Amino acid sequence: MPKSGTVYLVGAGPGDTGLLTMRGGELLASADVVVCDALVNPDLLNLVPGNAKIIFAGKRANLHAIPQDELNELLVDHAKSGKIVIRLKGGGPFLFGRGGEEAERLAASGVPFEIVPGVTSISAVPAYAGIPTTHREHCSSITVLTGHEQPGKPDSTIDWEHVARESGTKVILMG
Amino acid sequence: MPKSGTVYLVGAGPGDTGLLTMRGGELLASADVVVCDALVNPDLLNLVPGNAKIIFAGKRANLHAIPQDELNELLVDHAKSGKIVIRLKGGGPFLFGRGGEEAERLAASGVPFEIVPGVTSISAVPAYAGIPTTHREHCSSITVLTGHEQPGKPDSTIDWEHVARESGTKVILMG
Repeated sequence: MPKSGTVYLVGAGPGDTGLLTMRGGELLASADVVVCDALVNPDLLNLVPGNAKIIFAGKRANLHAIPQDELNELLVDHAKSGKIVIRLKGGGPFLFGRGGEEAERLAASGVPFEIVPGVTSISAVPAYAGIPTTHREHCSSITVLTGHEQPGKPDSTIDWEHVARESGTKVILMG
Repeated sequence: MPKSGTVYLVGAGPGDTGLLTMRGGELLASADVVVCDALVNPDLLNLVPGNAKIIFAGKRANLHAIPQDELNELLVDHAKSGKIVIRLKGGGPFLFGRGGEEAERLAASGVPFEIVPGVTSISAVPAYAGIPTTHREHCSSITVLTGHEQPGKPDSTIDWEHVARESGTKVILMG
């Protein structure tokens, strides 16, 4: 049973509503507050009770509707007021989803939280296109990179020369 | 609606039954035949109708219950006899799951199939342990490797020297 005063960081999957997890569906159906990314399929919000509050955190390049700090505050405040809070994020929240930062902030504020992993676009998008990201005969590794690093970082932490030389599959997110 | 004469390659997720997708749950509930990996949580089979045939393909190192060729034949034969066939695989079927080989075989035999991606252990296991695999401040890439390459390959396709030098997160499956 979902607990009041708790934040659930839920991965919504790559788009198709059928790819939400059963646990994610159960949590949405008992939500008091849902904080939702722009990349999430809006049809998933049909699962949310009519009296729940839905907040669009909407994040696309150059259009950050709610700054991350403010968003973290929102999660903390609603949880502290005793709500069941669902943070619904596109794909998997811990794979290039800034779920790590939100979890850190919740932990620092003493707010209980639970991670509910989702189907990541890393394998789902190639799968829908009929492309296996690995194949026993041909490829035994896959590297996933972000095309958009944090703008304030002094240097890229990605060694593109190594990436180019390595033989495995590459998936570039937010390319 | 699931279609008869079709094979559904369904990712069962990393263990927790709540991490099966809603689409996966719908398909299991209408299955005629389920071909199930050893790594799949057996509780998921409670979703399958009582009159469905369940085949354990059971695969663990050194204990391959059904050889892959025979398993491919099974999928083809049941589909050609007009059944709704679910191939239930641990994690995501196309990420180190040999889903690619099964899909090739089905395509070659003219059997319609659909891929239903699952939650992969790559991000779910670290997430349950509270470890973000990427973090905006610290890490912008992740490389996933298999610890067990196909035994018959003359050389490893993994360049371990590169892997060791690269700065991103590493996840080694079947280590």
